[in-house]
Amino acid sequence: MSGKLPEQILLAHGAGGRLTQELVREVFLPALDNPFLAGMTDGAVLPELPPGRPALTTDAFVVSPPVFPGGDIGRLAVCGTVNDLAMVGARPLWLTWALILEEGATGDLVGTLLAGAAGAAREAGVAIVAGDTKVVPRGAGDGVYAVTAGLGVVPPGRRLGDDRIGPGDAILVSGPLGDHGATVMAARHGIESQSLISDCAPLGSLVESLLESGARVRSLHDPTRGGLITTCHETAGRSGLRMLLDEAAIPVRPEVEAVCELLGLDPLGLACEGRFLAWVAPEDADRALAALSTHPGGRGAARIGAVETRDAQAAPVVLRTASGILRPLDLPSGMNLPRIC
Amino acid sequence: MSGKLPEQILLAHGAGGRLTQELVREVFLPALDNPFLAGMTDGAVLPELPPGRPALTTDAFVVSPPVFPGGDIGRLAVCGTVNDLAMVGARPLWLTWALILEEGATGDLVGTLLAGAAGAAREAGVAIVAGDTKVVPRGAGDGVYAVTAGLGVVPPGRRLGDDRIGPGDAILVSGPLGDHGATVMAARHGIESQSLISDCAPLGSLVESLLESGARVRSLHDPTRGGLITTCHETAGRSGLRMLLDEAAIPVRPEVEAVCELLGLDPLGLACEGRFLAWVAPEDADRALAALSTHPGGRGAARIGAVETRDAQAAPVVLRTASGILRPLDLPSGMNLPRIC
Repeated sequence: MSGKLPEQILLAHGAGGRLTQELVREVFLPALDNPFLAGMTDGAVLPELPPGRPALTTDAFVVSPPVFPGGDIGRLAVCGTVNDLAMVGARPLWLTWALILEEGATGDLVGTLLAGAAGAAREAGVAIVAGDTKVVPRGAGDGVYAVTAGLGVVPPGRRLGDDRIGPGDAILVSGPLGDHGATVMAARHGIESQSLISDCAPLGSLVESLLESGARVRSLHDPTRGGLITTCHETAGRSGLRMLLDEAAIPVRPEVEAVCELLGLDPLGLACEGRFLAWVAPEDADRALAALSTHPGGRGAARIGAVETRDAQAAPVVLRTASGILRPLDLPSGMNLPRIC
Repeated sequence: MSGKLPEQILLAHGAGGRLTQELVREVFLPALDNPFLAGMTDGAVLPELPPGRPALTTDAFVVSPPVFPGGDIGRLAVCGTVNDLAMVGARPLWLTWALILEEGATGDLVGTLLAGAAGAAREAGVAIVAGDTKVVPRGAGDGVYAVTAGLGVVPPGRRLGDDRIGPGDAILVSGPLGDHGATVMAARHGIESQSLISDCAPLGSLVESLLESGARVRSLHDPTRGGLITTCHETAGRSGLRMLLDEAAIPVRPEVEAVCELLGLDPLGLACEGRFLAWVAPEDADRALAALSTHPGGRGAARIGAVETRDAQAAPVVLRTASGILRPLDLPSGMNLPRIC
């Protein structure tokens, strides 16, 4: 970690005076190194965008604990925003981030999440060009909250959206489900595991590989909060179609299954932060799977279901179990996964 | 307030399941009404930008209390981000916002800040096109934190920046200083005042009037956290010049002075959220003042100082007091104004 980290964050680090300036100048700027941020002015003025439609998104991250195997709230915030842009077909370019620190948070924690954010930004090929830091009194926060926003560009001619999904389309997933959610829940409950690690990763390059394969991709979504079930419900709602998932085909690691059994969680409702679902023309499913599987970020990609027409009364998301029974998957109404992201 | 507000915010409102969808669909979407948000998808895909350089900025708002005379944290968040864009010469276009709500926050509070944000966006001519809502457990937040990011475009040929400031340039302010900070501090301390009201307002249209007046404007900054003193220090630091302020010329309302005396605050260090400082070529100062004063947002604009060359040892920001003495204004190191924004 470059720069002079304070031992503890004080209220004054967020008040806009000398300590704020020192924190930004000596800690944040070296870590996030880029000319736009270096101006330390009210906003970043950027070069003109490449042709296409701009895409804008934001995410707030309140995960507890803020550091977990495979990531931290800084890495998570960058990946989450980069991935939201990738899901609408945009090439991520520029990010902003804001930190809300609790008085008394350690400098080490700030250093860890800053390094996590900077590393993820490098991996994703984006720059964090504007930021803000606020400090709230002890007891009015929980260590750190991170909020990112991102700007990308959808190249001309590229169209994705749930309105393009049709009956018969294949549903693919880019890798095993639930690793992030299970890892965070295990860390929160003090469950030790050698092999559990968050899937938290930027997805831009994997999405480009898929889209460049020539497969007719209808729509993309990353199953974050609420996992596969919630994402399929949202997509079913927007498309008016039914999502039929094949339980035997859905990749879930044994260690994720084990944590879920222990804590009474459903892996299909667990958040991922480095996986996505792709709705693809059925005759292009193999080509799409091949494009995913040959990319390092897409190992374990699988075809997990298909889209069907839906009657007004029918369940929008259905699981065909290993024994062949069709089981409706309800949208979780409660909150089995607080602060997973 | 349109939509069905819940009585209290539950953790489940931020968990991504049914209650999150209801809150977004029935409360947020009607209030922020626009086609980009209505898609409720991962990111907003927007029309191509007008020519010019895109500008990107972000701000976190943790003000306590979240509702105060003249505004609320929602209005503040929109104004803050719009104003940061205006300060770099950008025309604000699109905003994102993220809310971090504390479990148990009232639906009324959410309704108030949503109406505040929607109203400010309308005034500023921008749309909030993407959002995120998280809920943290009781005791891990403070009612509500709001984080906005904004995208604007700097028209071709428009250049602003502290590197353009030169000795002799005039320093103008667009209106009386400290109203926002004094109002929030008074509200926090239970001080009643009929006339104290936050200056919180979007500045885009006032900035356009100034820039279209033909006055050679070098640089703009809004004196938010740390007020006039901090802003002048930052500008002195970036330009390598000295800011000489004329105490008698600095507009501060008597009711703001009164609160400052009562609470031991310096009005020159108090945040504004609807004022800006303009560095202008000296021979254009009158024209610039006229452009400001004839706009409803610029009543009370004044010429408050001038830029000088600076010796290495000299104080970067100096106040000429009413009695003619030159007094250095130090950058506040501590934190006389926590959570004013």
